[in-house]
Amino acid sequence: MKAIINHMIIGGSDAGISAALRIKEVAPTHRVTVLLADEYPNYSICGLPYYLSREVKHWQDLAHRKKTDLEAAGIHIRTSHRVTAIDVREKKVYARGRSIGYDKLLIATGASPIRPPISGLNQAGVFTLRWMDEMLSMDAYIQQHSVSSVVIVGGGYIGVELADALTLRGLHTTLVEYAPTILQTLDAELGKLLQQHLTEKGVQIHTQTQVHSIKQRTGTKGLKVLGTADFSQMTGMVIVVAGARPQTTLAEALGLETGSKGALRVNQRMETALPDIYAAGDCAETYHRYLKKYQYLPLGTTAHKQGRIAGENMVGGRAIFQGSLGTQVVKVFDLVGARTGLHDRDAAEQHIPYQTISSEHDDHKAYYPDAQKMTIRVTGNPQTGELLGAQIVGKKGSEVAKRIDIFASALHHRMKISELNDLDLSYSPPLSSPWDPAQMAAQAWLQAQ
Amino acid sequence: MKAIINHMIIGGSDAGISAALRIKEVAPTHRVTVLLADEYPNYSICGLPYYLSREVKHWQDLAHRKKTDLEAAGIHIRTSHRVTAIDVREKKVYARGRSIGYDKLLIATGASPIRPPISGLNQAGVFTLRWMDEMLSMDAYIQQHSVSSVVIVGGGYIGVELADALTLRGLHTTLVEYAPTILQTLDAELGKLLQQHLTEKGVQIHTQTQVHSIKQRTGTKGLKVLGTADFSQMTGMVIVVAGARPQTTLAEALGLETGSKGALRVNQRMETALPDIYAAGDCAETYHRYLKKYQYLPLGTTAHKQGRIAGENMVGGRAIFQGSLGTQVVKVFDLVGARTGLHDRDAAEQHIPYQTISSEHDDHKAYYPDAQKMTIRVTGNPQTGELLGAQIVGKKGSEVAKRIDIFASALHHRMKISELNDLDLSYSPPLSSPWDPAQMAAQAWLQAQ
Repeated sequence: MKAIINHMIIGGSDAGISAALRIKEVAPTHRVTVLLADEYPNYSICGLPYYLSREVKHWQDLAHRKKTDLEAAGIHIRTSHRVTAIDVREKKVYARGRSIGYDKLLIATGASPIRPPISGLNQAGVFTLRWMDEMLSMDAYIQQHSVSSVVIVGGGYIGVELADALTLRGLHTTLVEYAPTILQTLDAELGKLLQQHLTEKGVQIHTQTQVHSIKQRTGTKGLKVLGTADFSQMTGMVIVVAGARPQTTLAEALGLETGSKGALRVNQRMETALPDIYAAGDCAETYHRYLKKYQYLPLGTTAHKQGRIAGENMVGGRAIFQGSLGTQVVKVFDLVGARTGLHDRDAAEQHIPYQTISSEHDDHKAYYPDAQKMTIRVTGNPQTGELLGAQIVGKKGSEVAKRIDIFASALHHRMKISELNDLDLSYSPPLSSPWDPAQMAAQAWLQAQ
Repeated sequence: MKAIINHMIIGGSDAGISAALRIKEVAPTHRVTVLLADEYPNYSICGLPYYLSREVKHWQDLAHRKKTDLEAAGIHIRTSHRVTAIDVREKKVYARGRSIGYDKLLIATGASPIRPPISGLNQAGVFTLRWMDEMLSMDAYIQQHSVSSVVIVGGGYIGVELADALTLRGLHTTLVEYAPTILQTLDAELGKLLQQHLTEKGVQIHTQTQVHSIKQRTGTKGLKVLGTADFSQMTGMVIVVAGARPQTTLAEALGLETGSKGALRVNQRMETALPDIYAAGDCAETYHRYLKKYQYLPLGTTAHKQGRIAGENMVGGRAIFQGSLGTQVVKVFDLVGARTGLHDRDAAEQHIPYQTISSEHDDHKAYYPDAQKMTIRVTGNPQTGELLGAQIVGKKGSEVAKRIDIFASALHHRMKISELNDLDLSYSPPLSSPWDPAQMAAQAWLQAQ
């Protein structure tokens, strides 16, 4: 009989550290080792833009927890230990040419930035952004070359956050998006609202434009970015943020299957098909609660949850990942955009009957000062009356983020839109209305049926 | 066969108008008449302090809807029509000495301010506050007598909102509360936080003090307020806000039963024991969703819901009031206090096993500027793991109101505290954490088990 169980976690970002913490919470005597490829355990990837903007003064503050905190919790952290192979039969992983044994293994290797087919990606001044070292290189480059302009390729969450951040830093910022509107995770109506706001703040936006090449401009340190629709832009720097691809090389070498967008197949217990091997976070598929399907939805919130579930099960628990709803929120200068569940394109892709009604509401009673309008899109199934999803764009400070959570909670319980009216939500004139905007938006949807 | 159904609604505040609007939505051809005792249909009672503070410039803006809006919706509004009797057999109500026939009747007569046994209540300069005309009288009195100080008797929601409002107006404000802390709808820990904040803002607070008399100060227009614990305070004005009592005289004359705190007994369809007679809002009992009991919980949000349910059922619907959780929020200067479900005293009174764990969390990632601490008290049943209630005090602007709604939504579905971790809530570093504060507070509760 073995006295100590050895847990090995490959990856020290959200999923890996959440698992490690949960293991030590539930089974303090077990041994937990986290192997990191880089030097930055438990960093907030979502926080990277805020150091570039200098809203965060020290990049070290971007850690959810310091290495010493993790060690104090009894977790062994091994930085710069990139795992090169896993031996399932011998229950060993290889890093730095040495083998380390394990009893239970968690693969939490995360994702890497997608490198789209753009010629000239591999040159100075062109960056992708997913990891701390990329951000630090980018930051150093801005300083060393006194960069005054940037082209951001990709108008997703990270793209718009970078546009906000680098404008704040004083760079002339251009954002290029191949789709008709930025932020494709929102319907076009709301994407346009945020797009307009970015434009007002000085960001130059080109939609329906695909960048195909980045060239060194002769005799200067500048770059020239070329794309469809005659796009041509001189710039000091290019950041390509075109999404993320699961890092699954190690797992695939074990014969583990991949599914949606190449992510590792797992079940709701975060188990892979191999005994004692778990996977969680951005390298793995995510169970979608409403659709009851596995998808690729790499999000920090999900990684935390999946890591916690994996950790609990690694010590013999029976935890079940209850699923994601794709809830997301982004701050873009003075506005906030949020979503949960399915928007129009999602519902159409899934062949679910849907109707979306957009309505505008004050965040609190209009008679009280500083009421702010927010636009709420409610998507529902007109055949069943079920809520399918919601999206909100409103001013920062008007509780947009936690209002989307009212919808997320409703979706969690598969509520009908009419049932939103039954929720006993808080009200005081400076903070809401007797029917919260979420409920008034539900009523607008019902009225349209 | 009758062509037009006649709906009669006694009371033109939240419940009455919500019912009227719902009737016209569902059955536009039906006739709806609202009889009001005063001249102020559809006014926001919760908004009264904000005119006194002058944050609202025109008291007319305190209406949820103007009379003309209501008339445009096809609703007949009869102001200054105080109903003196109801004839159930003849289906008539009497107002201004005339009778008016009805087919369906809604009693939405609201509540009146409790007048505690204080000697000297009936003199100039002493006010209660529930209705628009009381607020306008109070406002006129302040102006006419250049009132510079006020004693507020009662430290509940309206009391603290008035303390905030009248301090803002420039009055020296004293708040007197008989209990050990103000805001008894919150546990003492949080009541004290708000109390301290009021004190910092210049409000003089006396707790454990019962006012017993108000005297005219000879030779002046001032009043002298005397109470237990040697309380003695000179003041220009006194406002007694010691709670509300359901107005049920008309209904009791019909033999209708009353229950909790004298409120009319209704079922979840908002029906009284008499056919075709409904009751809703502050005159009626409220079904508590968690306790599965009827209580007296006079709140604007509840009145709106009950009115809507009553209206729907008056035109033949089958709507069921799904119950209140006592969700409330109050802004006190720069802080916000919120609650939902049961707090310690509630749970104790109901003989439900409970444990409350208080924890402090940043509203968003601490590395991003302006993170604000909030205190969250989570109350759960240690035997079942069920969530019983939650309370939050935090800074205005840190989404306290809609964070309590995450708990309210969880309570609506009778979730276990552990299940809060399964909710897919929104996160971005400027707005939350990968685990929302609501979830971190749930984890703190779980850790303490």
